[in-house]
Amino acid sequence: MKRCFELAKKGSGMTSPNPMVGAVVVKGGEVIAEGYHKMPGQPHAEINVLNQAGRRANGATLYLNLEPCTHYGRTPPCVDRIIEAGIRRVVCASVDPNPLVNGKGVERLRQAGIEVIVGILEEEARRLNEVYLTYITKGLPFAILKLALSLDGRITLSDGGWITGQEARKTGHRLRSQVDAILVGRGTVIKDDPQLTTRLVRGKDPIRIIVDSKATLPSGSRVITKNKGRIILAATKLASSRRLERLKAQGVEVLIVKEKDGLVDLRALLKKLAKREITSLLVEGGAKIATSFLKERLINKVTFFISPKIIGQGGLTATTDRLPLIELSQVVYKKIGKEILVTGYM
Amino acid sequence: MKRCFELAKKGSGMTSPNPMVGAVVVKGGEVIAEGYHKMPGQPHAEINVLNQAGRRANGATLYLNLEPCTHYGRTPPCVDRIIEAGIRRVVCASVDPNPLVNGKGVERLRQAGIEVIVGILEEEARRLNEVYLTYITKGLPFAILKLALSLDGRITLSDGGWITGQEARKTGHRLRSQVDAILVGRGTVIKDDPQLTTRLVRGKDPIRIIVDSKATLPSGSRVITKNKGRIILAATKLASSRRLERLKAQGVEVLIVKEKDGLVDLRALLKKLAKREITSLLVEGGAKIATSFLKERLINKVTFFISPKIIGQGGLTATTDRLPLIELSQVVYKKIGKEILVTGYM
Repeated sequence: MKRCFELAKKGSGMTSPNPMVGAVVVKGGEVIAEGYHKMPGQPHAEINVLNQAGRRANGATLYLNLEPCTHYGRTPPCVDRIIEAGIRRVVCASVDPNPLVNGKGVERLRQAGIEVIVGILEEEARRLNEVYLTYITKGLPFAILKLALSLDGRITLSDGGWITGQEARKTGHRLRSQVDAILVGRGTVIKDDPQLTTRLVRGKDPIRIIVDSKATLPSGSRVITKNKGRIILAATKLASSRRLERLKAQGVEVLIVKEKDGLVDLRALLKKLAKREITSLLVEGGAKIATSFLKERLINKVTFFISPKIIGQGGLTATTDRLPLIELSQVVYKKIGKEILVTGYM
Repeated sequence: MKRCFELAKKGSGMTSPNPMVGAVVVKGGEVIAEGYHKMPGQPHAEINVLNQAGRRANGATLYLNLEPCTHYGRTPPCVDRIIEAGIRRVVCASVDPNPLVNGKGVERLRQAGIEVIVGILEEEARRLNEVYLTYITKGLPFAILKLALSLDGRITLSDGGWITGQEARKTGHRLRSQVDAILVGRGTVIKDDPQLTTRLVRGKDPIRIIVDSKATLPSGSRVITKNKGRIILAATKLASSRRLERLKAQGVEVLIVKEKDGLVDLRALLKKLAKREITSLLVEGGAKIATSFLKERLINKVTFFISPKIIGQGGLTATTDRLPLIELSQVVYKKIGKEILVTGYM
């Protein structure tokens, strides 16, 4: 099963909106084929592995980290192919909560006389596909809040510049390459004029989303002018149509979202993004956006780089509003360069 | 030499204002005696180890983490005894920067025909006696800032209570048992009504110091009424003599310190404390005191417990004023319970 996870991870950052799936065919105690799902539209892991195994699949055991599908999507149902191939036993880490599947795959296999074992390393399997599971069950992108902080909780230096070192920034860019989209507030674009692309490591650029309720972003911002790939501006009806037209002319997709206290309603925005098959979202700040996401409990996972610096009141605090106490769970600490990376779930 | 360090550490928290010293006598490749300095007034490590070695010290090598003394203090000079014992070679990690010694020990031994090697694991030896070295060379206590912080740099929960868990608090109390004194501001006494004693682990209570420029602390504060051991109130001449008299009657030592912007001048206070043989000081807050100490660069070492919580604006920030950027050096991260302990030097 662990090998399934390893194989599944080969699709990391590429399978969205599909889950990452790895598959192993074992016969007579030997691995006879391995496969994984590479990207949407391409065959599922099950098909890949069965193509590879060919006739030898007859009477074999198939290991999967996720229940096989039963529906026609971009590709035909995998269960039919598993039955056809003569697989005798399927070992599955977890059921697929997608309402189109959700146990039906297991049921169909059992009806066909195949032995099915479900729940092996289920926790790890759920963690592996945390993005897909959140997206499928909640209809929201899996949102990761990424911040670089000093020991005293400041996210900017008094005089500008980076809080963290190169190593931590590389890790941040790797994270960008693994998500569907990256989101920042208007303030961050104005303050930092970032490109929001993946540069320090090799990998795909995420879709860039800017929350700007009145669409008053300067049209010369690098995120727009250095336009690489999709960029979405989330505004409200408070934005002038002239401005919106100009942004559209610059290649920006405009998303009008309902307002909440004069600002973009973040939950409504995330629902719209999920409908556009954005399954994962990296929220990179600034402080106000971060605080709003935390306040509305729209963050699933937190990745904070803590730098051994003390900045004082000249730096902005990460949280700018009252919050209910948030205690992260399943916290992992990892040293990266001079910084410590804290990962946890809300 | 490492064994010397281990032996020296046995005196941890007890030797002030003296350094921690360990001593090993080796002859013919074998350890024939070990000793360390236990507390002021008691024999130095050298005397302990030579007493133990007796006549076998003749012709042996003596390992020490600090240069032996040459002056009459509470005890007679160690060099005389080393020469007397017939030691042939002395291996010393570092020179004692105490102006009363400072190389004179090495010189005297060499004059007596003893081979002296200095500088073995010198860095570690300096770290071991960082308190003593700061105290002796700067005439100030070695000040450690201890704070418990959330990820967003808050040092209080919105609704009161502990930020960190039991494990971290135990480590905090262990730190209390190892310093000469603990210092807090008036605000912390009023807000938390702490006892500032060592309770969660076994160990001595530190001298408690409260900074309260106008001496307006409530006389019913637990730190005063649960009076265990020495307590010093640092005030300025702005304090009313009636209040000061009442505090003295309650067993509080009053220290009048020159003022700075209407508050206690912290550097002047530390100098006074050093004169009272307080060599180490644990600064436990609150935010204003911590920020003032940082601002005046009076902190030598930082020990921050970072808890995987996000508190928001309802909690106080650790730093309440503008500061020059502080980048800690020799940073060490250690997981303690759910928290991460960050240690570093200013």
